[in-house]
Amino acid sequence: EQPLFLIAGPCVVESEALALESALELRDLCAELGVPLIYKSSFDKANRSSAQSYRGPGMEAGLRVLERVRREVGVPVVTDVHEDTPLDEVASVVDVLQTPAFLCRQTNFIQRVAACGLPVNLKKGQFLAPWDMTHVVDKARATGNEHILVCERGVSFGYNNLISDMRALAVMRQTGAPVVFDATHSVQLPGGQGHASGGQREFVPVLARAAVAAGVSGLFMETHPDPDAALSDGPNAWPLDRMRELLATLIALDRVVKEQGFAEQ
Amino acid sequence: EQPLFLIAGPCVVESEALALESALELRDLCAELGVPLIYKSSFDKANRSSAQSYRGPGMEAGLRVLERVRREVGVPVVTDVHEDTPLDEVASVVDVLQTPAFLCRQTNFIQRVAACGLPVNLKKGQFLAPWDMTHVVDKARATGNEHILVCERGVSFGYNNLISDMRALAVMRQTGAPVVFDATHSVQLPGGQGHASGGQREFVPVLARAAVAAGVSGLFMETHPDPDAALSDGPNAWPLDRMRELLATLIALDRVVKEQGFAEQ
Amino acid sequence: EQPLFLIAGPCVVESEALALESALELRDLCAELGVPLIYKSSFDKANRSSAQSYRGPGMEAGLRVLERVRREVGVPVVTDVHEDTPLDEVASVVDVLQTPAFLCRQTNFIQRVAACGLPVNLKKGQFLAPWDMTHVVDKARATGNEHILVCERGVSFGYNNLISDMRALAVMRQTGAPVVFDATHSVQLPGGQGHASGGQREFVPVLARAAVAAGVSGLFMETHPDPDAALSDGPNAWPLDRMRELLATLIALDRVVKEQGFAEQ
Amino acid sequence: EQPLFLIAGPCVVESEALALESALELRDLCAELGVPLIYKSSFDKANRSSAQSYRGPGMEAGLRVLERVRREVGVPVVTDVHEDTPLDEVASVVDVLQTPAFLCRQTNFIQRVAACGLPVNLKKGQFLAPWDMTHVVDKARATGNEHILVCERGVSFGYNNLISDMRALAVMRQTGAPVVFDATHSVQLPGGQGHASGGQREFVPVLARAAVAAGVSGLFMETHPDPDAALSDGPNAWPLDRMRELLATLIALDRVVKEQGFAEQ
Repeated sequence: EQPLFLIAGPCVVESEALALESALELRDLCAELGVPLIYKSSFDKANRSSAQSYRGPGMEAGLRVLERVRREVGVPVVTDVHEDTPLDEVASVVDVLQTPAFLCRQTNFIQRVAACGLPVNLKKGQFLAPWDMTHVVDKARATGNEHILVCERGVSFGYNNLISDMRALAVMRQTGAPVVFDATHSVQLPGGQGHASGGQREFVPVLARAAVAAGVSGLFMETHPDPDAALSDGPNAWPLDRMRELLATLIALDRVVKEQGFAEQ
Repeated sequence: EQPLFLIAGPCVVESEALALESALELRDLCAELGVPLIYKSSFDKANRSSAQSYRGPGMEAGLRVLERVRREVGVPVVTDVHEDTPLDEVASVVDVLQTPAFLCRQTNFIQRVAACGLPVNLKKGQFLAPWDMTHVVDKARATGNEHILVCERGVSFGYNNLISDMRALAVMRQTGAPVVFDATHSVQLPGGQGHASGGQREFVPVLARAAVAAGVSGLFMETHPDPDAALSDGPNAWPLDRMRELLATLIALDRVVKEQGFAEQ
Repeated sequence: EQPLFLIAGPCVVESEALALESALELRDLCAELGVPLIYKSSFDKANRSSAQSYRGPGMEAGLRVLERVRREVGVPVVTDVHEDTPLDEVASVVDVLQTPAFLCRQTNFIQRVAACGLPVNLKKGQFLAPWDMTHVVDKARATGNEHILVCERGVSFGYNNLISDMRALAVMRQTGAPVVFDATHSVQLPGGQGHASGGQREFVPVLARAAVAAGVSGLFMETHPDPDAALSDGPNAWPLDRMRELLATLIALDRVVKEQGFAEQ
Repeated sequence: EQPLFLIAGPCVVESEALALESALELRDLCAELGVPLIYKSSFDKANRSSAQSYRGPGMEAGLRVLERVRREVGVPVVTDVHEDTPLDEVASVVDVLQTPAFLCRQTNFIQRVAACGLPVNLKKGQFLAPWDMTHVVDKARATGNEHILVCERGVSFGYNNLISDMRALAVMRQTGAPVVFDATHSVQLPGGQGHASGGQREFVPVLARAAVAAGVSGLFMETHPDPDAALSDGPNAWPLDRMRELLATLIALDRVVKEQGFAEQ
């Protein structure tokens, strides 16, 4: 078992300055703590609740920023692609591609993304049972791509709420793909603010600790120097200046469970 | 209040013969019962559980069949489009476009479909609260298209199960868009057969009666002369030869509620 | 199939005057519409969210009121009993006993109530699958009591919300027991007001119409001349002066489905 | 923060021999690992799915066994009481009383149990939001009893399934009562075997690790030397001979989170 890796960054590319600064800070923190880092940011939020919400700088400008992050900060970069994204252009810049949860059942899309050959982080739909992710992984692997990751980000629980089933992490391990837990989207309250999704930032540490102890390969967390001012998903982002204390606990938990082994296996 | 209309047909275009025969039978039945009919069939099932499942004849062949149905049987036709469908080609053949439930939050996609100018049946995601459909309708209408319908097809209820919230029909009426209830996908058991979705055909009449009495503009039902032999969604299709008895009841219920008015308003 | 019967009344016995007046009004209305009526009111709300809420007049005073209703208004009466109710005293006054949803799995309690020999309306727990009610019915019938009814009142759907599964009505019919739909508790928002349960009165007609069209033997509805002033469950009570219009629609729907038959059988 | 305590034992008192042996083994293991132990076993399973299931030896015989465990093995003992249990007799034997999840809203019952003056472990109903446990705790404390614990054991998630919301543990901490996670009932599949409840024993370690990392005062686990032969709840019991490895991991996790502190506070 490898130690925990981290996928982190601001939800959306807000500005070049924010991207570079947050990447730098995360890089130094992760280097110090010994956590492999993949920097994440979106260039386009293609599925905002409302058409009025900020969507990002667009692909061209966004990729330019991610390229600078990658080159100047020296960290690998992941971004999410959508049903109408020109995949080649994105794949030529980033290190890992990510597919949105809502699109996990779109066979063509999943296969077009996997066919790019980069590692792909497949987010599990909020409507999908964990054992049904095996079909999504199979579709992706059928393209010949063996670098597939699966990511839990909560499952529908009544209206405007998600719940995180820790059993799902163990179930998805059986795909053989590294399992990632998305601790910030899992505390979203979808549509919970009427015109936008709300979030319960205060539960990010609770779910992150639980998931790491349940046993995961990686953790996904959106972070921002000032979450209340973030242009997307602020209510569920974890403050950048509180990342160190949280990561320290998570690393210690990860070490315990990976040393002691999973009793369920 | 207009009387109930029906959207019906086999889930997928299996063959020209099946399409023409089922369209003819539905046309004659609906004419006799006084129910406006829109014939529905898919040319491509883009989001099957497994990559091994039958997906349909493809767009070109499928559209040829739908065009014959339209011209020779003389009924309007609806089909569903996907994230990578050439919309113009489809829009030039059919009368109504339909967007899949999983894609209801993809802003670009919804707006590209609405921008075709045809009436659009927007299926509500299995993960969406009914009041959040107002944002989807707003996105579609922002293109200038005023012929938007909304369609309930069940909401996630635990794993591998959907539940139909009859309150949702009343909530979605407030969008001003005609509300359609999809009585056959609502009895799907998503992923319930392991490699494919199961279904509870026996509950189609129960939910259809309930929804019509709750008050809807239209009813959506997939039907097949031999559901057990259907190439897609057979477990939840309603047998074509039992459509008459079911429709007769539904029409009578529709008449009662529309004559007496909705006490909740 | 017998025509629909109605179980109705104010949630709790607030005063003798209210009880007699509401019973009289319901009796006359139901006689006019040809609906068999069972008058319902509770003497003790044993499971309020908070210990501060009004619980009712207590058993002795409550039973005196119910006895007057029964004798002077001439309608049969049902009331709910609890884990510590002296059952004999209640059974000597009322015509039907009702068991609370939360207590549906308490074997001794269910059997003690059924052993009283009166008809028993068994409410299905908010946590129970409809097919699991068969075990509850079996436990009740094991006492020799064959007059068992089963009642749907919504199932847990996320937090502080219930959803009504119309399939459950068809599933529970298979117990052979008459199926009752509780249209007012089904729109409760349990705990939804913080210290008490909220309710969505506006959806009572929607769910009542849906359930009657799905097919039930009886309908349960709490009603009050002034729901906003009711001492218990006001948010989900249906106004007494709007009962006539609602019942008229429901009777017409019931006639349609019982004449035409259930296509699912 | 105190280190983790353990409530454990076979679900039901099957025999004096089993009770004494399992208590002895748990006592020695917990002494070695430095975990405070409370031995748990039921004398009567009052809410089995079916009336045919084994219910236990009854109160009198069961209490005799628990008394021997307490005296001869020298461990404190907890047992669950029900709506019709003579509380005084039970309270005179055991150290802690436990109230069943289904009964968490029965005000009289909760208050009668709390009034016994012993510490009470209040199980949260499968239908209750975690923030609504505050009312249950308030009712219990209103009797003057300050030794109240709250216990999470899963929440309804569709039919025949429970899901464990790790956020609930943090929410319930706000009552000020020590929070216990029941790792074995949380993997029950209620009614999932048709006539009895099923269980997913393999997920006990996953949920136990997650809950301890989320942060709890105590852990509840039913255990049995031969779970497949257990007379109650075998499918979700954790094997006694695998308790050591599991506990070792849990203790290490507990130490990490309690040393590092909860970032959410």
